[in-house]
Amino acid sequence: MATERPAKLRVFSLNCWGIRFFSKLCTQRYEMIGELLDREQHDIALLQEVWSEQDFLFLKKKLSSSYPHTHYFKSGVIGSGLAAFSKHRIQDALLYQYSLNGYPYMLRHGDWFGGKAVGLVILDVLGLKAHVYVTHLHAEYSRAQDEYLPHRIVQSWELLQFVRHTSCGADLVVLGGDLNMHPQDLGNRLLRSHTGLRDCYTETGTFDGCEDGHTLIANNHFTKKQDLIPFEKGIRIDYILMKGSQRVNMKCESLSTTKGSVADKPFPYSDHEALTAELALFRSEDSRQHESGNTPAVSEQMDVVTEACAVVKEGLCQTEAMRDKAMHLVFGSLLLLLLPLVLAFLPCSCSFSFSTVGLLGAVCISLLLSGALLYLLFTTHIKVLKETEDQMMLTSNDLQTKLTGCQLSGSSSSDGSPELQPRSPFKREE
Amino acid sequence: MATERPAKLRVFSLNCWGIRFFSKLCTQRYEMIGELLDREQHDIALLQEVWSEQDFLFLKKKLSSSYPHTHYFKSGVIGSGLAAFSKHRIQDALLYQYSLNGYPYMLRHGDWFGGKAVGLVILDVLGLKAHVYVTHLHAEYSRAQDEYLPHRIVQSWELLQFVRHTSCGADLVVLGGDLNMHPQDLGNRLLRSHTGLRDCYTETGTFDGCEDGHTLIANNHFTKKQDLIPFEKGIRIDYILMKGSQRVNMKCESLSTTKGSVADKPFPYSDHEALTAELALFRSEDSRQHESGNTPAVSEQMDVVTEACAVVKEGLCQTEAMRDKAMHLVFGSLLLLLLPLVLAFLPCSCSFSFSTVGLLGAVCISLLLSGALLYLLFTTHIKVLKETEDQMMLTSNDLQTKLTGCQLSGSSSSDGSPELQPRSPFKREE
Repeated sequence: MATERPAKLRVFSLNCWGIRFFSKLCTQRYEMIGELLDREQHDIALLQEVWSEQDFLFLKKKLSSSYPHTHYFKSGVIGSGLAAFSKHRIQDALLYQYSLNGYPYMLRHGDWFGGKAVGLVILDVLGLKAHVYVTHLHAEYSRAQDEYLPHRIVQSWELLQFVRHTSCGADLVVLGGDLNMHPQDLGNRLLRSHTGLRDCYTETGTFDGCEDGHTLIANNHFTKKQDLIPFEKGIRIDYILMKGSQRVNMKCESLSTTKGSVADKPFPYSDHEALTAELALFRSEDSRQHESGNTPAVSEQMDVVTEACAVVKEGLCQTEAMRDKAMHLVFGSLLLLLLPLVLAFLPCSCSFSFSTVGLLGAVCISLLLSGALLYLLFTTHIKVLKETEDQMMLTSNDLQTKLTGCQLSGSSSSDGSPELQPRSPFKREE
Repeated sequence: MATERPAKLRVFSLNCWGIRFFSKLCTQRYEMIGELLDREQHDIALLQEVWSEQDFLFLKKKLSSSYPHTHYFKSGVIGSGLAAFSKHRIQDALLYQYSLNGYPYMLRHGDWFGGKAVGLVILDVLGLKAHVYVTHLHAEYSRAQDEYLPHRIVQSWELLQFVRHTSCGADLVVLGGDLNMHPQDLGNRLLRSHTGLRDCYTETGTFDGCEDGHTLIANNHFTKKQDLIPFEKGIRIDYILMKGSQRVNMKCESLSTTKGSVADKPFPYSDHEALTAELALFRSEDSRQHESGNTPAVSEQMDVVTEACAVVKEGLCQTEAMRDKAMHLVFGSLLLLLLPLVLAFLPCSCSFSFSTVGLLGAVCISLLLSGALLYLLFTTHIKVLKETEDQMMLTSNDLQTKLTGCQLSGSSSSDGSPELQPRSPFKREE
């Protein structure tokens, strides 16, 4: 009997840790990454933290025959660090820069300067329309006191909104990148539950890699051990996620990670481990049922969006407090500015030189400008947090409507969404 | 014989000119706008330049029974100014803030402070999925010397990319807003040719409004006549655009504009004229042919994207020159900073007071910081312009591939795109 052989798609993802003059052995590691990619000939390689365009151009040149199609996503001051290398033709590309991404004054963290974003490339994979996303979210510098949690939740929300609204016409969806979130972290659950994307690690047929799929491990030459505490063995923060469509069913046949050291090389490719997934694509006449069978129930979606909304609300309160402090700085500086003005015009001002008054004035104006800039910054952050909260409320209400409809009709489809009777906007007339 | 009555959708769009303490008679005009909307009971009203959330909340309260569903889009420092009022349930909302939107130091223009964006609300219109977009692009302050042209072209590009990638699952698409572009301006042609959106003014069955559909007219109490030169009669920069789908065919039955003065009122609603479109929705078993019959040919799409790419390239050169100037300012300030340092440590420095040296230092540091901020600003602008150029090149190459395929096969579909033989990624095996 004739059966159909599934088409295969090999996807690679790696955070390259490519900060020139800071990341160790950058040039040598890019050389190694280039060799690996050239040898492995994946269908698509998704790279993060390629902060320098020169490094991207080096890889592009080296891989011109194995990956003839590339896109380097440009945003922010330094760039997004995101790059896609593909064997298949890239038909279109789209970039969404996250609205919240840390603070410019946190120079030692530096996330703000890289315009963190999600990039989409649309590929023609043997006649199938593949929407492939690559992203990198804000880092978590302290798990115990994570001041950036609301930022990462807003980024997760914007990521899921971008994916679910731009993947509608796709035959298959793949997302690869460094989410900077553990598998059961809120932002991760939010993303998966609202997009239907499935984690290759939990779905794979066979796995070869680090224990528990960790991608940041103690056994990596470049890892700072104290960054992993209290997860001595490692953490899993890099992912390949996937989703099929009505036309195509997807299955992760195998997943592998690098394991710190590289054979015949004195050091690893990066401080992160690389992921390689082998995905099988099956033709599906009625894959809707199968695919949506993996979409969480409406009640679960509601719970997770409610939880996320609470984090955004808390972030809003904190940011409003920071904006108020900036406002106090502005008013304080304005009051202080009176001092040089009074000194300049008082009859006794002869004892103060022009320069003293000028210096005092300059200091006050510097404080005033700093306060004003911080006020502007926190005002834009408040706008973003409020917009996210509003969108989450809309989604929550929409899910509530579905749930109510579901309870009223007493039936629901396989994904937990109610089977509402479709109305017709078109009226018949005789 | 039984025929089907089309469903109707009444859409309203107005730039409200709602800058508190600056726009004339703001409170009274919002009162009038509220009355108009309440009386007319459109299906959806799309407002721009609602800069104050208080004004939005006033309208929301006033219209709570006639437009029970609303969304106010928040972004930037002041806001996006965009609002949607709907009779139909809003299921979801999404916002895309444009990456380029003027300069923060151009205080008298002020566009930068409003986070100009495109907002999307997804409505359930009698069982149909309506994707309704509202937007407001960067203003054109001088037609002869339009320094913001590259910014507006990038915005047009981001708008068309956002629309075409998020409208895939929609039954019908409506876009309303102030595009700040004349009908045949490059950005407008780019938007229409690459999204297939059709202009209600050119498609309407009946029209009642200002001559040539103008929405900024000399005969408006609030219009500055010198702003219209050399278009004494007026210009058309506000639009309602529409597009159907495979399921729904759309037709604009009537379009009207306000005409400056308002009956029984001493002044108009705004400095812009309002638009009202009555759209008829027909069920369509095979509307694909009809709808795509309106999509411009591939060659036309290629011409317009080439033209746009040239503008982006020119913008890139200008911005690189501005970044170089900012860099010179940084180096100049660093050199100047040597002066107070030398004065402070020279043996003869006794003749210069601590304050003089401090004042000089403060001036130099201010110059240095200004230079650095400008350098960061122009660097991000360059990143955006390059990303846009790359995306345009990808689209251009994709169109070229279609065109070549078209010429090779010698046949094309109704929209000028080639009818390529679909390949199957799935191989049969015995």
